[in-house]
Amino acid sequence: MRPMKKLQLQKLFAANLLRERKARGLSQDELAHEAGLHRTYVGSVERGERNISIGNIERLARALGIDPAELLRGNHKPVR
Amino acid sequence: MRPMKKLQLQKLFAANLLRERKARGLSQDELAHEAGLHRTYVGSVERGERNISIGNIERLARALGIDPAELLRGNHKPVR
Repeated sequence: MRPMKKLQLQKLFAANLLRERKARGLSQDELAHEAGLHRTYVGSVERGERNISIGNIERLARALGIDPAELLRGNHKPVR
Repeated sequence: MRPMKKLQLQKLFAANLLRERKARGLSQDELAHEAGLHRTYVGSVERGERNISIGNIERLARALGIDPAELLRGNHKPVR
């Protein structure tokens, strides 16, 4: 077993989700409703506090109309 | 809330994981060991039975040396 590195994907996902939600002009409440999730849950995901499941990744990506893989990518250009 | 569509990302991830593991000539046991997970858990993930967390997606991607986003992509070329 390799020595444990700090897990970072959760934080990357959080930043991507926040950026893509705002790019669409959606509130957390609107995104949550569209995805069938609770607003407070979406808020905690966006703060990087949740070890989110692949099922909920799919729900959020579908609600945003984005490929789920895009929410895990690390080389997004900053929003200007 | 949108009407619920069948969730498919879990199955896509399973197929991608299986393909990438085999492409590296790794057994489930070897991959599990490298990722710090249990062999039977990796087996059930590869059968599409698990609503895997983003933390375990990251562990498996790291063990395979692949970008986690690649394990969620749907347009891979078939292995020949």
